[in-house]
This record gives sequence, structure tokens and C-alpha cells, in this order.
Amino acid sequence: MRSDAAPSDPVRFAEEKARAAQEAGRTLALLSRAEKDAALGALREELLRSQEAILAANAEDMEAGQRAGRGAELGSKLDRLLLNPARLAEMCRAIGEVAALEDPVGQVLERRTRPNGLDIRRVRCPFGVVGIIYEARPNVTVDAATLCLKSGNAVVLKGGSDALATSRALVAAMRRGVERTRVPPAAIQLLDSADRAVTGAFLRMRGLIDVIVPRGGAELIRFAQQQATVPVIETGASVVHAYVDAEVDAGQAVALIVNSKCRRVSICNALDTLLVHRAALEAVGEPLARALAAHDPPVEVRADGRALPVFARHLPAGRVRPVEPERDYDTEYLDYILAVKVVDSLDEALGHIRRHSLKHTEAIFTADGAAAARFLAEVDAACVMHNASTQFTDGNQFGLGAEIGISTQKLHVRGPFALEGLTTTKWLVAGSGQLRP
Amino acid sequence: MRSDAAPSDPVRFAEEKARAAQEAGRTLALLSRAEKDAALGALREELLRSQEAILAANAEDMEAGQRAGRGAELGSKLDRLLLNPARLAEMCRAIGEVAALEDPVGQVLERRTRPNGLDIRRVRCPFGVVGIIYEARPNVTVDAATLCLKSGNAVVLKGGSDALATSRALVAAMRRGVERTRVPPAAIQLLDSADRAVTGAFLRMRGLIDVIVPRGGAELIRFAQQQATVPVIETGASVVHAYVDAEVDAGQAVALIVNSKCRRVSICNALDTLLVHRAALEAVGEPLARALAAHDPPVEVRADGRALPVFARHLPAGRVRPVEPERDYDTEYLDYILAVKVVDSLDEALGHIRRHSLKHTEAIFTADGAAAARFLAEVDAACVMHNASTQFTDGNQFGLGAEIGISTQKLHVRGPFALEGLTTTKWLVAGSGQLRP
Repeated sequence: MRSDAAPSDPVRFAEEKARAAQEAGRTLALLSRAEKDAALGALREELLRSQEAILAANAEDMEAGQRAGRGAELGSKLDRLLLNPARLAEMCRAIGEVAALEDPVGQVLERRTRPNGLDIRRVRCPFGVVGIIYEARPNVTVDAATLCLKSGNAVVLKGGSDALATSRALVAAMRRGVERTRVPPAAIQLLDSADRAVTGAFLRMRGLIDVIVPRGGAELIRFAQQQATVPVIETGASVVHAYVDAEVDAGQAVALIVNSKCRRVSICNALDTLLVHRAALEAVGEPLARALAAHDPPVEVRADGRALPVFARHLPAGRVRPVEPERDYDTEYLDYILAVKVVDSLDEALGHIRRHSLKHTEAIFTADGAAAARFLAEVDAACVMHNASTQFTDGNQFGLGAEIGISTQKLHVRGPFALEGLTTTKWLVAGSGQLRP
Repeated sequence: MRSDAAPSDPVRFAEEKARAAQEAGRTLALLSRAEKDAALGALREELLRSQEAILAANAEDMEAGQRAGRGAELGSKLDRLLLNPARLAEMCRAIGEVAALEDPVGQVLERRTRPNGLDIRRVRCPFGVVGIIYEARPNVTVDAATLCLKSGNAVVLKGGSDALATSRALVAAMRRGVERTRVPPAAIQLLDSADRAVTGAFLRMRGLIDVIVPRGGAELIRFAQQQATVPVIETGASVVHAYVDAEVDAGQAVALIVNSKCRRVSICNALDTLLVHRAALEAVGEPLARALAAHDPPVEVRADGRALPVFARHLPAGRVRPVEPERDYDTEYLDYILAVKVVDSLDEALGHIRRHSLKHTEAIFTADGAAAARFLAEVDAACVMHNASTQFTDGNQFGLGAEIGISTQKLHVRGPFALEGLTTTKWLVAGSGQLRP
């Protein structure tokens, strides 16, 4: 099967690729860490060797994007799509980091010998085939493929159609790279069809694909979640809250709020709604309003009735307005916008978070240890923080060495995850003829 | 809200119960092990004190079942439904075992201090609300409720309508039992409606129920899987294989096969298809045929062309017939029936298992360590065994101390699971004002 063949039936062609991935996955699952790391090295070399072809393919995608594009989002979309030697080098450096990670496969999670002599072990093993659906981000192609390889999984990639030429060039190079290693090239599959029927079929390949991880915006995740019959690990969407308690170091809180909101606004761990205890409103609100007024790019504040006067004192008229609770409190802004609400107690803050949180990242900023302890215990979210920027929710920042995504579900993995989240377990039972009474 | 009120809108009434469970779950999630164990003790006492009312309710269900019943399965159905003082005592004894289990909640699974001083912990916490859908088995009502309570979860029970009176009596007693403890009675909810719309709504209570565990036959599990939007932990369905390799202790293999098939035939870990290496056919097939011929109740063998003559020699004509591959190899018999197929190699056995396994329990019986190692490494199933009866797949036999079910999925938990499978995790980040650069 040639991956560049023109398929007569694109859905069936996609199924054949998934079947090839499944078979290759069986070989890959049994490889040692050294064999997988060697393949990662060879793959990285071949990506660097293929730089010219990859950048040419990317230029093709960029041109098509410019021709088709319009609207304010075109710039950031093309920026995400763009590859250059520096970005390719960065992708290749990251492969080295993946190779350096511990291999989770084969780890013995528990072991016990039963009174009847049965030796029972629970060991980590690969899923088999992991599906990744994502937008037009070339780095995800390489990132996802190498994390799957390292965790012993074959991968089926369904990337954004705007990056089709780039994805093809990257996957072709990665497959060539592993050709002389123990990893079968068929373990890396790309569904390079823009046909929506292929995407639908991909999400319903139960029995061929073991799990699908969507990487991208809220819309993509919702789509995957609704269409998939393959189990999905939900990632990404969030409404992030920070609560400033009555007892607080105001200077520290302001710095934390500004970092949580403004360091990068386009990512899922950026602050959306600030809850302020009324006792801290003046002490924190005043310097915060000044800091936001001075911030470049400008930040817009949507404040409730009690907070509004404080912010209106410092922010120009166009950048502060009354919050619309029905809309704002459930919005992931991904922009320089902050909702602010004053609360009368920790309990009111917890109640607000309970109603509006998407259980991604929630933080409390306080000098009161008891309040912090209650917040950490009672808030139901993947990551709950005390006196730390919400922007720390990230696999690398957590010390995982990599990240395939940030799970916002409760099953399997929660929060930032990398290799371990791409594995399952099995029970191995070694006996000597034991019969069950 | 009175749980015995006649609901005007049963679906809305069910949602109110789930909402009450969610709120109660928030209290329950924060309780200590001692508080939960005390509640389990009180609940057990009240069950024993309420024996008369419970048995009276059960007698009502039994009568209704006898009036409505027909067909061969009535006997076993009524037997599962029946409660008597001995069975109630056994249920109460099991509660003591649940109380004795370690509390998974609050366990720190990993902890690291980052170079910037952030202290990051991953801790176990309850799901929140667990839904259990099951058939007319009174013991599941108590079993599921107590395992959920111990793991800090509220529970919404949707039991079989044939056991409605019994379930109501059991739940009422359990709720009375916890009344004077720290556990809110609302943490145990019963959807006591036979309305199918309630079942449908229950399976789609995303946002109210965190996970649903179906306990019962393949049909129930498939139904839950197909209808649910709440995440489901699939349990139960299986086609169990045992492979007898060329090099084998024939006597041991025969004993293992008979135990795997016949100890109990109605459970998911009972053997369905026996694969025999041709080199072991005479040595194992002959004594196996004699053993099955002598077995009471009688066992029927469905053999492929090569195995048929061996079994026909010993089994009466009505109890041995040619296998129908299209049907038999994908059937979970739950009966005294065994399919037998002769294979030429370990690879052929692995291929057959790959095509027909439901990834529950698979076994190899052999004296060849290398063959066993390959089988354990390559078979993709929740439990893979060497020289042990397949009937050992069970939470208690594995040393978990209890079992809520046997997961046949790869996400979250796999194989027999108890308290840990009813928990999720969250990341707790403690800082001192760290900003992300």
C-alpha cells in the first residue's frame, strides 16, 4: 500500500491504513526501549536531512492558505502553519527529549503472590493504535508520532487539511527514518484526505483504533466527542478561575493575576474569571487596575457591579464594562479579556467555580493556609493551585518531560499527560496448575 | 424529597435524585476513612435490624416474578432474586470486608518539587457520583452502594425492575443506617422507576453522573454502551480461550481445562474455546474427552475436523458435534458447551485469539517457558494466564478484597477492579507566588 496512492474509496483506504497501523503496532508493542530510542534518533536525522522537501511542502500550504484566507484570524493561523529551519530544528530537539523519557511499557505496577501460589502482576502496555485529530499545526504531527512511538503505540494522524502537504512531507520523512530500524514504518499513518467522510469514519473505527486524542480548540474537541465511538480523551477546553481570598499579599496576587491572564492569552490555562473577596477588593483591585491599564497589549475588564468602580477609575472607558453574567462567566476568552466578580466568602467563590468551571485549572491566591487547604480539597478540577500562576498547567512545567494534551475528563488520565496516559495495563497470572475451588 | 413519593414526571424526578447525590457526594468526598467506616458499620447494623421488612419485600418480588415468569430461565432468575437470612448475613459480612479495605482517597501517587519551588502532587479523589445499572440481583444493591461509599462517591442505583421492592427496602435500610453518621443519606439514591425513559435519561446524565458501571449480561452492557453519554466502564462480556501448547503436562492441562470450563459456567471467566496444538491432541484430548464424558452435568463438545474423532470416541453422539466456526468461535456460551479447535502452532493460536477474543481472559497451558512468555507478552487482554484456571479472574482471587466488576476496556481500569477504579486523580500545586516566564 502506497500512502500517496489516489484512493478510489477514501473511507476504505483510511480503514486499510488503520488496519496496517494495528498490525505494525503489534510489532512495536514488543520492542525494547533501546530499539524505540534508536528509531527516534533515525527519524530525527531523516527529518533534518529532508528539510528542503519539508519546507517546500510547507510553502505550498502557506501559499494555498494565503490565497484562500480572509479575516482577522488569518495571521495567527498562518503563523501556526509556518515552518522554517528554526522551527524544524526545535521539533527535532523535542524528539531528543522524548527519547530521554523513561519507557512506561513493561513497568510492573503491582505484584503479589497469592496464598495458592499464583504470581499476579499488573504491567503497563501500549494501547495498540492511538488516533490523533488536530488542526493545521505541523509540530503536532511530529510530536504526536514520536510520543506514540516511544509509548509503543502505532499512530493514525488526522491533521488539518490546511497543512496537508506539510504533514505528508513530515510523515514521509519519519517513515523513511525508521525504515532501517526495528519500528515498522506502517506504525505511522497519515489520513491525508480532506474528505469529511474520512474524518467521520476515523472517529468511528472502534476495534481498529483504541483511543483518540483531539488536540486543538473547543470546537474540534466537541466534534470529536460527539462523533466518536472510539474512546476519546477529552482535552483542552476550560474556563479558568482565580480566587483572591480576604487575607492576601496584594502585590503577589496582582503579579499572579497578570501572569495568569496575560503571559499568553491563546492557551487553555489562561485566566478567564477573577473572583475577589470583598475584603480584598480595594487592596488588590486598585493596583491590578493600574497594572492592567499599563499593560500592552491592552486588557479589557468585564466587571460586576461592585468591582466596576475600582476598574473604571484606572482603565479607559472602552476597556472596562459591566459583565454579562449569562455569557461572560461561561466564556473561555483566549483573548486579553478578564471577567471580575466580587464575592462575600470562600463558599461563594467555591459555588461560582462549581457552576462555571470546566474542571481544567482553578487557583486560590491567599496567605490563609486554612482557606487554601479547603480550596485544594473541595475544588473538583484537573489542576488546583495555591499561589501559583494558572499558566503552569503544562506537562513540561509539571516535570513530565513532554505533553500530549491536558485531559479534562475524570477517566483514565486527568490534567497534563504524556507517555503514561498512552498506555493501558494488563494482569499477568503465572501459575503451576492452580484450580479454583 | 421523599424517595417513595409518586413522581409526576419520572425523568425529572430521577434528575433531582442525581442532583441530590451530587450534592451529597461533595460532603462524602471530604470524609476520613474512619468516618466512612463508621457509616458502613451503622449501615450493616440497620440492614440486619431491617431483615424482616427486607425479606417481606423480597417475597413480594418473588411472587410477582413467579406470576409473570415462564421459560427455562425462570428458575435461575428467581434464584438470583431470592433473599433469605443466610444471604442477607452474607451481604452484611461482605460490608465488613469493604470497611477493611484501604481508603484510596487522598493517596499521593506522585510528588515533585520543581526547580522553581512549586510543590506538585497527584492525589486520588472520588469521581463524585457513580451510576450502577444492573439486573435483579439484590446483593449488587448493597455491594455497589458500600463500595461507592468507601471510595467517597455518591451512588445512583438503577436496578432491575423485577427486584424493585427488594431494592427499595435495602436502600431505605442503608439510608436509615447512615442517618446518624457523617455520610449524608442522599449519597445513596435509587431510581425506583420501571419507566424505560428513566433508564435512558439516567444513561445520559452527563454533568450529574461522572461514570456508569453496568453490572450484568452482555445485552445490558451493550445497551449501556450504546445509549450512554456518561462515560461507561465496560464490564463482563467475554469469549475466553485456553491454548494447550505442544509441550505440556497432560494431566495438569486436563484438570485446568475442566476447572476453567465447568467450575461455574454462568460467569464471564468460564472457558469458551479450547485451542490445542496438534502435537498435544492425543495426549490431552483423550483424557479430556474421558473427563468430560464422566462430568455431571454433561458437557457438550463442538469440535473441528481434527478434534472431532478424539472426542467422538468417548462422548455420546448427542454431546459431540462439528463446530460451526462462524458462530461458535464468537460465542460466550455461559453453559456446559466447549468449542475445540486444533492448531499447528503457537502463532496460529495467537491469530485465532486475536480475531475472536473480547480481551477478557486468555490462558496458555504449557511446560514451555518461552512459549508462555510469548503468550503473556503478545496476547492483548485484561488477564493473561499461564497454567492457571481462567476462573481466577476475579477481584477477590486477585487479592483486591472486593470487586465492582471486570473491565474489558483499555481506558482507566482493566480487569477486575474495586475501589481504585472508582477514583480519579487531581494535581495539587502549592506555590509561593511563582510566575511562569
